[in-house]
Amino acid sequence: MGRLVMKFGGTSVADIDRIRNVARHVEREVKAGHEVAVVVSAMSGTTDRLVGWCREAAPIHDAREYDAVVASGETVTAGLLAITLQEMGIPARSWAGWQVPIRTDGVHGSARIQEIDGTEIRKRMEQGQVAVIAGFQGIGPDKRITTLGRGGSDTSAVAIAAALEARCDIYTDVDGVYTTDPRIVSKAQKVDRVSYEEMLEMASLGAKVLQTRSVELAMVYRVPLQVRSSFEAPDSPNQNRPDGTGPGTLVCDEEDIVEQQVVTGIAYTKDEAKVSIRKVKDQPGVSAAIFGPLAEADISVDMIVQNVSMDGTTANITFTVARKDLKKTIDVLDAIKARLGIHEVTHSADVAKVSVVGIGMRSHAGVAARMFKALAEKSINIQAITTSEIKTSVLIDEAYTELAVRALHTAYGLDKA
Amino acid sequence: MGRLVMKFGGTSVADIDRIRNVARHVEREVKAGHEVAVVVSAMSGTTDRLVGWCREAAPIHDAREYDAVVASGETVTAGLLAITLQEMGIPARSWAGWQVPIRTDGVHGSARIQEIDGTEIRKRMEQGQVAVIAGFQGIGPDKRITTLGRGGSDTSAVAIAAALEARCDIYTDVDGVYTTDPRIVSKAQKVDRVSYEEMLEMASLGAKVLQTRSVELAMVYRVPLQVRSSFEAPDSPNQNRPDGTGPGTLVCDEEDIVEQQVVTGIAYTKDEAKVSIRKVKDQPGVSAAIFGPLAEADISVDMIVQNVSMDGTTANITFTVARKDLKKTIDVLDAIKARLGIHEVTHSADVAKVSVVGIGMRSHAGVAARMFKALAEKSINIQAITTSEIKTSVLIDEAYTELAVRALHTAYGLDKA
Repeated sequence: MGRLVMKFGGTSVADIDRIRNVARHVEREVKAGHEVAVVVSAMSGTTDRLVGWCREAAPIHDAREYDAVVASGETVTAGLLAITLQEMGIPARSWAGWQVPIRTDGVHGSARIQEIDGTEIRKRMEQGQVAVIAGFQGIGPDKRITTLGRGGSDTSAVAIAAALEARCDIYTDVDGVYTTDPRIVSKAQKVDRVSYEEMLEMASLGAKVLQTRSVELAMVYRVPLQVRSSFEAPDSPNQNRPDGTGPGTLVCDEEDIVEQQVVTGIAYTKDEAKVSIRKVKDQPGVSAAIFGPLAEADISVDMIVQNVSMDGTTANITFTVARKDLKKTIDVLDAIKARLGIHEVTHSADVAKVSVVGIGMRSHAGVAARMFKALAEKSINIQAITTSEIKTSVLIDEAYTELAVRALHTAYGLDKA
Repeated sequence: MGRLVMKFGGTSVADIDRIRNVARHVEREVKAGHEVAVVVSAMSGTTDRLVGWCREAAPIHDAREYDAVVASGETVTAGLLAITLQEMGIPARSWAGWQVPIRTDGVHGSARIQEIDGTEIRKRMEQGQVAVIAGFQGIGPDKRITTLGRGGSDTSAVAIAAALEARCDIYTDVDGVYTTDPRIVSKAQKVDRVSYEEMLEMASLGAKVLQTRSVELAMVYRVPLQVRSSFEAPDSPNQNRPDGTGPGTLVCDEEDIVEQQVVTGIAYTKDEAKVSIRKVKDQPGVSAAIFGPLAEADISVDMIVQNVSMDGTTANITFTVARKDLKKTIDVLDAIKARLGIHEVTHSADVAKVSVVGIGMRSHAGVAARMFKALAEKSINIQAITTSEIKTSVLIDEAYTELAVRALHTAYGLDKA
């Protein structure tokens, strides 16, 4: 049956009872003949508590110390799961990142994995020992603990799967990827298969099932990635399909998706803020003069819309940034305002971005037009538009988010029968 | 001013405020010109929580996994203290046991330190960086985390002090070693200096200021050990005496104690239980037949009293064991009873051991006699007696413990004026 990496997040390992439930999922896969590695997060609440202590000790603190403190949460879960598996008669041992070793760069707090030496783990997996690996952590060139940043356990799991040439099953509190947020649209449907590219768009647009970096990594190394529920009974008869996959959503190569939909899903995010600059001189270099300083301040700009005024001498520029960066953005603009002759800067945090995503869009015309029509029918005003090969996004008034998502879900024929 | 190892226990680092208080103690010593290493325990409550999880996962569990889980508590404290010190402008970094490295044997759960490589730490201390070391943990020959057993942070601190050729200050919730338990005798006095040998007797007899193993280690490597309070204000004017020691109790070589007392202190323990065997045949080999099986069952026997009966053919044997071992002891005796012709086994957990300790006893006669007289005056019956070079202990009815301790404290002239 080959090698399998199973990843469980914080809510799935929140207490010993849930860790036992995780162990039963592992047992099922071991009995099915898989060689299994498990990647675990910290028990839910643990990381927040540890981060809170670091902040209380010093608002700005040494990222190397932060990493040593915060990584301990995953180490604890790995040990507890190994104990639980052994208690069930399944050979297992825990591995800290430095023990594997999972080598990362030296960017403490948001390190990137550079190399995983899977030799020892692979050898033991072949002998039937389950490797329980602490997610989110590695060892830097300075021989100190590094962490991969929040949600980094997904990345750990995919990187380990790549090193072990294994499939990677990500267990979450949802049972797969949906056509949209089921809390908004009751007729949302679970998607059986979704391409890496689509998943990337969905993830970065706020469908927070998988970390964006983990999907990128899976795409690069062609790691088959499955999103499935840790709360479905481990011994449920529909846990393993005949083809070896489970009942969740498989994130895979486009070619492995037989029946491609034009639009796979509707994503939205309320984490955006809109900034408008009025009457900036319409001359070469003005965009660079605005967006250069923003980039230097580490602010990611998403949508950009530029209109030239009637008389052709001034322009209005509207763009979006992450809502948490809004204050910093205004500060940067205030500093360069006079020099650029900017007359007026307005901003709003009451905006949302709604997107339709689908690899089928590349070969189908009229997808965007249908979107605009559906929104117009509900009298929803579009404040900005961006498009990519497999995605069309619009910025709207936040109050209309749910209405827009429901209208688009219906318009693209995604409603469950 | 030389190198100094400062050790802080769980209650001293229970939250960030207390960690800040610890940092101020460290600051004082740094400013006094010391090169400082700090050894910390887990925040109080943490170890119990982690141990509880291990037990919940499996009553009997892999000690290697237990070690990985439980050692995380000290790692967290070390990181948080390093952050706090840095915030105060003091260069510092945290060290996990495996990073130092602190090499131990492979006895997980109660490992013994075998070797500490202090090269890197010493180099950084010379450059003014405070080394904040996670206590209680090391790395075994299998490259996995080991722990030294409960209270092992004291042992870590002394071993590191030995490796760094440093003095070791153990900060606790008491401000030194007293002539006896101040909760029982309000006139108990703090002792300025006590010898390693005396401290060992006090520690093993239940004056739980220092772990026995740490005192043994300090004695072997001649590490000057100071017991002092972590709750006394760090900037109090009496924190550092002109001779470089602090306001606590210095545990040191006998030769360094100028004015030796005959009796240094009165110790007591209620952790004992008494077992009496009546009318066992008085013949060679009978003691071995009784105490051999007890030793094999890992039961430590403390006091032993043997009387021969009037007719000279049978003996009565009374001995004490740790109270927690009483049931096991009775089980062992039941198993060998018939074979040895033992008629009757009685036992009692309502006993206490009271001891007078002092290196001066070696050169002074009549110390024990004074003890028996003082107890007789209070009508306290002595059930058993043991003596060593620097200690005389009696077993009495537990109800009389406080009365006996007070009487002896007065009898040996230890009461505060």
